[in-house]
Amino acid sequence: MLRSDLNLTMLCDFYELTMGNGYFESGLKDQVTYFDVFYRNVPDNGGFAIAAGLEQVIEYIENLHFSDEDIAYLRGRNLFSEGFLDYLRDFRFTGDIYAVPEGTPVFPKEPILTVRATAIQAQLIETFLLLSLNHQSLIATKANRVVRAAQGRTVLEFGSRRAQGADGAILGARAAYIGGCNGTACTISDQLYGVYAGGTMAHSWIQMFDSQYEAFKTYCQLYPHGATLLVDTYNTLKSGVPDAIRAFNEVLKPLGITDCGIRLDSGDMAYLTRMARKMLDDAGWTGCKISVSNALDEYLVQDLLRQGACIDMFGVGERLITARSEPVFGGVYKLAAVEDEAGNLIPKIKISENVGKITNPHFKKLYRFYGNNTGKAIADYLCVYDETVDDSQTLRIFDPDAPWKTKTVYNFTAKELQVPIFKAGKLVYKLPTLEEIRTYCMQQIDTLWDEVKRFDNPHVYYVDLSQKLWDIRYNLLKGCGE
Amino acid sequence: MLRSDLNLTMLCDFYELTMGNGYFESGLKDQVTYFDVFYRNVPDNGGFAIAAGLEQVIEYIENLHFSDEDIAYLRGRNLFSEGFLDYLRDFRFTGDIYAVPEGTPVFPKEPILTVRATAIQAQLIETFLLLSLNHQSLIATKANRVVRAAQGRTVLEFGSRRAQGADGAILGARAAYIGGCNGTACTISDQLYGVYAGGTMAHSWIQMFDSQYEAFKTYCQLYPHGATLLVDTYNTLKSGVPDAIRAFNEVLKPLGITDCGIRLDSGDMAYLTRMARKMLDDAGWTGCKISVSNALDEYLVQDLLRQGACIDMFGVGERLITARSEPVFGGVYKLAAVEDEAGNLIPKIKISENVGKITNPHFKKLYRFYGNNTGKAIADYLCVYDETVDDSQTLRIFDPDAPWKTKTVYNFTAKELQVPIFKAGKLVYKLPTLEEIRTYCMQQIDTLWDEVKRFDNPHVYYVDLSQKLWDIRYNLLKGCGE
Repeated sequence: MLRSDLNLTMLCDFYELTMGNGYFESGLKDQVTYFDVFYRNVPDNGGFAIAAGLEQVIEYIENLHFSDEDIAYLRGRNLFSEGFLDYLRDFRFTGDIYAVPEGTPVFPKEPILTVRATAIQAQLIETFLLLSLNHQSLIATKANRVVRAAQGRTVLEFGSRRAQGADGAILGARAAYIGGCNGTACTISDQLYGVYAGGTMAHSWIQMFDSQYEAFKTYCQLYPHGATLLVDTYNTLKSGVPDAIRAFNEVLKPLGITDCGIRLDSGDMAYLTRMARKMLDDAGWTGCKISVSNALDEYLVQDLLRQGACIDMFGVGERLITARSEPVFGGVYKLAAVEDEAGNLIPKIKISENVGKITNPHFKKLYRFYGNNTGKAIADYLCVYDETVDDSQTLRIFDPDAPWKTKTVYNFTAKELQVPIFKAGKLVYKLPTLEEIRTYCMQQIDTLWDEVKRFDNPHVYYVDLSQKLWDIRYNLLKGCGE
Repeated sequence: MLRSDLNLTMLCDFYELTMGNGYFESGLKDQVTYFDVFYRNVPDNGGFAIAAGLEQVIEYIENLHFSDEDIAYLRGRNLFSEGFLDYLRDFRFTGDIYAVPEGTPVFPKEPILTVRATAIQAQLIETFLLLSLNHQSLIATKANRVVRAAQGRTVLEFGSRRAQGADGAILGARAAYIGGCNGTACTISDQLYGVYAGGTMAHSWIQMFDSQYEAFKTYCQLYPHGATLLVDTYNTLKSGVPDAIRAFNEVLKPLGITDCGIRLDSGDMAYLTRMARKMLDDAGWTGCKISVSNALDEYLVQDLLRQGACIDMFGVGERLITARSEPVFGGVYKLAAVEDEAGNLIPKIKISENVGKITNPHFKKLYRFYGNNTGKAIADYLCVYDETVDDSQTLRIFDPDAPWKTKTVYNFTAKELQVPIFKAGKLVYKLPTLEEIRTYCMQQIDTLWDEVKRFDNPHVYYVDLSQKLWDIRYNLLKGCGE
């Protein structure tokens, strides 16, 4: 039984079902709707987020169905018509889904995913779509911050025991890998998704032997290649590193092995790693890697490196797997348009007293403009579905919140970010491998200017609207004000 | 296929397997060990936590086995001996587990769960045990804070779409219910666990109709009993509440129905709910309940009530389902003792430069003392497994960190908190229903003094050691210092 076969159809907010029954009973069953998934604020005040979680959305959509038990449970609630329950019995997703590929850097207010489906279908899938995209985008985004802070050093995800549930661990490790981590401690994430899993010993291993040295020696004998010894159980510098060097000398040296490691899980990492590095180098173990763990995040990693800590590998646990500093990715799912009986699109807008919460209406196209000379991303551009950007011409773009601020782009390549995932319920997207997603993510982040990647006060990347889309939005807002 | 049948054996940190193979190969395969699960700090600086997640631990232990695919994956890693892989093929948990029942208020440094098993078995289950107990204890504890802030008003869990993965949503709703929430929006949590699920409409429902009034009227016709209308799509006081009253008058009044509701998801809740209450009362809808949602937590709930908001029900989403203010419950799993070949227990301690991180050694008993006159919990008391508290006598207890501070307890009842869950791999515990767990949790929280339940600077509840246990701990520490 694969986890991907699990039927999560009933993992929906109950109101999706009350609304579904309502649409069914009030003649809106076949009303075609367009919904966008987008987010409003980058976690941790960062400059961008990384989209992730699409593969699990696809598995969910493919498995979508109501079992007899599901129908029986719903009937027992005494809220739903028999007609609706019959309809659910044959329920399949028959709509279209467009989405940005996993690993794409994404910005506030642009559609990460768009659904075109009947109202009942589009509504039913809301909860899981948001859950999957919110969770994995959150972790991929956080992981990428930690990876950037580590400046090329290895970063491993170590947080399973503190994750918020099994999927938090399993798919969290997957998302962390997309965001740039080099691997995980979570075995099943390797088995299922190919996120390289590694690990060596806990403090209990050392406590099980009569002496620390014996524990180290035994471990080196069992796993001579790359043996990594946990040196902080008793005293890192007085006994941990000396015992490790002794075990390396006695077991690894005769075998001609030079790759090995030590790990510290407590204490003043900046001081201890510098001292440990010197002790290892003085003993001739210059190839010995130093790993650290213990409640790390991007700020602590940055600090340690500023202080000259000698660290080759960071094991990042609870603060990554829960995105502790900001554990919520606020993706939302909003109605953007409906089709009338003749198939004409009618744009819809969600107004709000809070201007920042007003949506971008209509079925849209999302472009990213790359400068031909730099390869860098210049701006994103939202237009109506029937518009096309001609990147052989110059284009005047403007800030949708301050339309008098304009910029002319030229010598650029316009790339559509959303790709078709489902057409009429059929999967039309070839899923990339996890390695491909991770590589694509790194490439795309390379197209962002450093100013967008700053941790503090990053440059706000442009997400502009076409004149036609801006006019539609403005006219809808004027209509609401009357 | 039930979620509880899912094999999560491979959801373990990889080092559990490298250590397991190491114990197997170095003759420590049958070494009997004792491990405690405990936590060090109450989240949000609270006075207590609520233990949860045991039922999923039990399901996990009962399903524990390595499939052929699991063995094949492990063989492919080229780290494990064929002898060990053979051993895993027949692997079952054959040890003992003791735990406090779900819903028990628990305090730092006391064992929530204790494992007696061979080193390989005890180590392998570490990751999932911690994951399950950490996750659900986190959410139950947070939920209870929100519920206490709501002072008897209904609190519903609304966070699925922002949960960290499917289990974050499904089991998060279960844990929130244990902690005192009245229900959830998550349908599958009702179906699987009996957490009452409810929900009415999203903004999109209103946008789908030609007018807000028509959307409300249709909803009232479909679900006349307890119809709850979302009134903030356009303007809460100018159109939302008036349209709701009109729909109630036209649809519910002729049916003689008086139970109904409105929900607000934005704006100044204190002001808007007071105004809405007056409008509803003036129109004769005094039985109409007012619900609010929108990024609530215990502090906002407290504030709203202080400001005289008229609220009957809180829908609490992302800040509950992720425990946003402190999204990590730091339960750890530490070796407490081993058995020698003659079956004698040898206590083990994990020392640390940080005094607060030093463990309580040995196989222990955990008592809670209740005053016979008050019914209130006086202190928790840890002693060695072969000690027994005679609560017909007075007992002098002392602060383990300041042993000169003593207190004499008398006229009390001593209750052992841990109960046997597994004996020699066999489940010996009758699982309570979720309702029983929730009721037990409420009763136990009633035994805590209000001072322990404060949000700010709560009284630190006593968790004391017996003289014998204190002496063992002290002598182990002295031994390490030499």
